[in-house]
Amino acid sequence: MSIGEFELIRRYFVRDKITVPGHPSVGTPQVTLGIGDDAALLEVPEGERLVVTTDTLVAGRHFLPNADPGDIAWKALAVNLSDLAAMSATPLAVTLNLTLPEADESWLAAFSTGFWNLADIYELPLVGGDTTRGPLSVTITAMGSVEQRYALRRSTAQIGDVICATGTLGDAGAGLALALYAFKQASLPLASDATAAALADEALLNLSDDHQDYLLDRLNRPSPRINSGVGVRGFASAGMDISDGLLQDLGHLLAASGVGAELEIDNLPLSDALKAYARTSLKAHAQARDWALSAGDDYELLLTIPPDKWQQLDNTPAIKSKLTAIGKVTKTLGLRLTKQGKAWEHEGLAGYQHF
Amino acid sequence: MSIGEFELIRRYFVRDKITVPGHPSVGTPQVTLGIGDDAALLEVPEGERLVVTTDTLVAGRHFLPNADPGDIAWKALAVNLSDLAAMSATPLAVTLNLTLPEADESWLAAFSTGFWNLADIYELPLVGGDTTRGPLSVTITAMGSVEQRYALRRSTAQIGDVICATGTLGDAGAGLALALYAFKQASLPLASDATAAALADEALLNLSDDHQDYLLDRLNRPSPRINSGVGVRGFASAGMDISDGLLQDLGHLLAASGVGAELEIDNLPLSDALKAYARTSLKAHAQARDWALSAGDDYELLLTIPPDKWQQLDNTPAIKSKLTAIGKVTKTLGLRLTKQGKAWEHEGLAGYQHF
Repeated sequence: MSIGEFELIRRYFVRDKITVPGHPSVGTPQVTLGIGDDAALLEVPEGERLVVTTDTLVAGRHFLPNADPGDIAWKALAVNLSDLAAMSATPLAVTLNLTLPEADESWLAAFSTGFWNLADIYELPLVGGDTTRGPLSVTITAMGSVEQRYALRRSTAQIGDVICATGTLGDAGAGLALALYAFKQASLPLASDATAAALADEALLNLSDDHQDYLLDRLNRPSPRINSGVGVRGFASAGMDISDGLLQDLGHLLAASGVGAELEIDNLPLSDALKAYARTSLKAHAQARDWALSAGDDYELLLTIPPDKWQQLDNTPAIKSKLTAIGKVTKTLGLRLTKQGKAWEHEGLAGYQHF
Repeated sequence: MSIGEFELIRRYFVRDKITVPGHPSVGTPQVTLGIGDDAALLEVPEGERLVVTTDTLVAGRHFLPNADPGDIAWKALAVNLSDLAAMSATPLAVTLNLTLPEADESWLAAFSTGFWNLADIYELPLVGGDTTRGPLSVTITAMGSVEQRYALRRSTAQIGDVICATGTLGDAGAGLALALYAFKQASLPLASDATAAALADEALLNLSDDHQDYLLDRLNRPSPRINSGVGVRGFASAGMDISDGLLQDLGHLLAASGVGAELEIDNLPLSDALKAYARTSLKAHAQARDWALSAGDDYELLLTIPPDKWQQLDNTPAIKSKLTAIGKVTKTLGLRLTKQGKAWEHEGLAGYQHF
């Protein structure tokens, strides 16, 4: 790495202190040694386990080639923090490996701003990484901690548990349709698998600017559910994040736990923006539901909670208000969709796989 | 990620148990939860700090485009383990992010073999990562642990300390010259910065096959000095690994510590292979010395050890035999080269920077 690159990194990524007034402090990182030596030293809270996850985002595959650098950084960090949230972990620190075609300072400035926008929310220190010249790619490794007994696994759902989700579902699917439409309008080249996704229809394009911005923001700057993940410690029996779509991810959880489930499609939590779209026609209603069931990139948490714990959560409305019950774990294997409690069949749902 | 890719990962990278009879067990990883959930859970030994480092290797930049996949994997892991060694850490676990143009099974098989060849030496578990389609790139994040008081920093060298290096220096420089020669013979396109390196001369090409293989192996499969790093706990006052060349890296250490040094060029540890080359001519002698001083990629440890501790190391010959004293830390800032104790000037040494 050249001296110039050292300087660029120092300018945008090395910070002595991270304080953001008004933001809640979730993590309590204790970085004994940060960037600048051969490796960083971290203190993992006594009695807790280190939680580690890592994800690479590649241009043209995980984000559109014209994506805003700040959005790329935010999302690369968010998908990793979402994995920590899915383990009920408190974030400790992250590392960043950035491969760039050229050391473009304005790009780096925008990228680092997006990165710190999210990292600062959790007072999350950047403790290592590197920059390399090459095709654009971002790898982030996130480290957190949690007591072993609170770590949320996928394989521990119990028959009778309430299945619930944080936030709202389907927004990122609608956001992707909007983003692809704008991308196509600009006549930019599209990766082959992106074309398979639905483009925005008239009703989506006629939503208010606020609603459209909201949906795009949900795609580009997902909120890792760290607070909810930490909040359900001692309540949830199993959990994971919803990155590939509810049906597919629930399928993974059920398979890992050796159980089945019923899912009530009328209980799927939809945002005001997606509801506004769904109200425009029967077709839009079905599309919104399908995005909620099978579009990826929402990065909400999928949790199973025993009925008695679900009741106890009434005492902590700040946590429970973020959760929506969408079904229950059954002894009968497989996944049955219901509408108002009655069996409901869905033909040809994108991303849906029987198992 | 497609189901096919899940299957590929499972086949080559998920292993239930890692045991290699005859190899020393340096790490004692306690992986509470490995690959397959949202994140991995690790236990960091009580009273120790987590040590984290990460590096990305990109095709055409960090390795020649025709490099053996097993060598790429080995080296990507080795450079990270070398950083752990430089902190005196014991390796705990690693994650691997692999970006590949296509899911080429024979390539993956060779890559994973090289990866496990090195990982198995330290019984090192792979606890996470991902595979992505895109231009070839490998990111490894290595985690280890060490008591805070034993962690080797760059900034803590003391005046009077013995400067020493593990192993031998300059081998990777000679190996690169051989590799570039073979590469050029095959008329393959060369990255612009690779052409700046010296090509092999007649004397190097006339070395025995054993010597040439040894030098290439030192370039392609460097040995992270984990055992030496752990061995000098409580002895060394500062340390780092030699990745960019002795003079440049020593410069970083001296600058961080606010001290100077004298370096005795006749004490540079050379391998039998490099000595055989150096004996062929005065020019070869100078070239071997310059590789030892300024060629990178050796991944030996550069350590400073107080004189009394240096003496005490006589009681542990297994450790001391791996170290060669090459100079001493001085109050006078800057780096002075000596030959047989007398000031020695070197003009035009590649990679040499005054500071």
